[in-house]
Amino acid sequence: MAYQFKAVRRVEFSDTDMAGIMHYSNFFRFMETAEHAFFRSIGFSIVSDNVEPRVGWPRVHASCDFKAPLRFEDEVEIHLLVSEKKSKALSYLFIFRKLNAKPVVEIARGAVTVVCVRRRPDGSMAACNIPPVIADKIQVAPAGLLS
Amino acid sequence: MAYQFKAVRRVEFSDTDMAGIMHYSNFFRFMETAEHAFFRSIGFSIVSDNVEPRVGWPRVHASCDFKAPLRFEDEVEIHLLVSEKKSKALSYLFIFRKLNAKPVVEIARGAVTVVCVRRRPDGSMAACNIPPVIADKIQVAPAGLLS
Amino acid sequence: MAYQFKAVRRVEFSDTDMAGIMHYSNFFRFMETAEHAFFRSIGFSIVSDNVEPRVGWPRVHASCDFKAPLRFEDEVEIHLLVSEKKSKALSYLFIFRKLNAKPVVEIARGAVTVVCVRRRPDGSMAACNIPPVIADKIQVAPAGLLS
Amino acid sequence: MAYQFKAVRRVEFSDTDMAGIMHYSNFFRFMETAEHAFFRSIGFSIVSDNVEPRVGWPRVHASCDFKAPLRFEDEVEIHLLVSEKKSKALSYLFIFRKLNAKPVVEIARGAVTVVCVRRRPDGSMAACNIPPVIADKIQVAPAGLLS
Repeated sequence: MAYQFKAVRRVEFSDTDMAGIMHYSNFFRFMETAEHAFFRSIGFSIVSDNVEPRVGWPRVHASCDFKAPLRFEDEVEIHLLVSEKKSKALSYLFIFRKLNAKPVVEIARGAVTVVCVRRRPDGSMAACNIPPVIADKIQVAPAGLLS
Repeated sequence: MAYQFKAVRRVEFSDTDMAGIMHYSNFFRFMETAEHAFFRSIGFSIVSDNVEPRVGWPRVHASCDFKAPLRFEDEVEIHLLVSEKKSKALSYLFIFRKLNAKPVVEIARGAVTVVCVRRRPDGSMAACNIPPVIADKIQVAPAGLLS
Repeated sequence: MAYQFKAVRRVEFSDTDMAGIMHYSNFFRFMETAEHAFFRSIGFSIVSDNVEPRVGWPRVHASCDFKAPLRFEDEVEIHLLVSEKKSKALSYLFIFRKLNAKPVVEIARGAVTVVCVRRRPDGSMAACNIPPVIADKIQVAPAGLLS
Repeated sequence: MAYQFKAVRRVEFSDTDMAGIMHYSNFFRFMETAEHAFFRSIGFSIVSDNVEPRVGWPRVHASCDFKAPLRFEDEVEIHLLVSEKKSKALSYLFIFRKLNAKPVVEIARGAVTVVCVRRRPDGSMAACNIPPVIADKIQVAPAGLLS
């Protein structure tokens, strides 16, 4: 049972904008990167064939609160925590920390909610229960970590 | 006094991901595009030199709720509405509508809060009052449009 | 018979990098945007269902020579010219011009070669002849425009 | 004296497009990532303050030949090789290899030429000699590696 994952990334030149800081849309790209690495850490790929029937995970909500900027070559830890687990949806909290600061400083907090969907015979998507092989490996993080 | 702006964009191939839909991070890029066009519509550039002292507008909050996907070549209207105006901050509501659907359908709703900042002599940024020449041109949208 | 198309775009904040100019990778995004608009101008969508069997257009070559930078809010014309037409491939020349300069100045020249492909029954891709309904509408630009 | 660097990256969901493969513009982002890591490997940052006067490295040419696609979660090696060294310019060859294929397969070859520039007092950029502290650490790769 897993409830967290930490990914580390270095801010790249193409992540920055003319204000000299990481463009805010890239925080959402980084959240997704951590989410997919979390899935790999429990043995699944977000798009793999190893769950039948195949499911997808569209986002229904995403948000981020920005406290300080990230700059080129900053090393950032994206700490994913499972904040809610429903039969058909998962919510994540993401805490961004700048590792190359002393002390390490919190940069931003994000949140994403994804819904588990399956393709209907007509091609459209319908929410469905998270397959047990996946759901059984995921649990909500302890309250202390989420506050 | 302006409180809204409508930008229209066509979803590009590079906006899509392997799920066949616009990647969720691009909704945030589109919001910013509408925000900057709104500023141009009232006579300013987000980064222009025509306000002294020069101010910047870092984001402190961004969120989006996704209701339906956008696909390649969809025509999307990004309807910006000023939802809050403080001495040092502005909040926007963004309503995404797919224009090439009959009837036009709401795709997503986003929100962004930006803070007006000025550079201190030491190079760091400090929140400051929105310059009157800008603030005087912006008002909060009628409540009926924001609900 | 068409051999050119002109698309116009405004450089967005998210197109820039910390050097204050449009990131070089975005020139390739802009080329593709013009390519797809060119296809729409002759009645096709790059991904539409209106040609049977469906074909795809992967890139096999892309290049760009940069002469001057583009900055935020610059208006840029992307002038696409068909530079070569083979049975299974098309090559394009792209001339970027900054319209908000007096006189208008050439910023960059790009080139892209795409191959027409069809999906084999096993799912892999194979080069195929450009469908006549498409090929018949495209011709190579006059030499004078390509030099 | 260094003439090469190998960076490894996993293709992310946001790197893909609706064709299910990595968007071609991202190959250029990946080249730059390897270039900047190469600079760090010889003790410099592309944007650091540790060389006086400060220099920049705008691109004047970029190209890529694509042989096979990259897909989500592919592990890709970006092998940078210095292909030319002039007083004011550097050229790089990039070989993309998919590591999670057996045998490892070459995916693409790219090339980039950057020019060393310094800011003139009036703010404009002028080509300048590569500072000796940097130039002395870089050499052209053996011909056998470049073919």
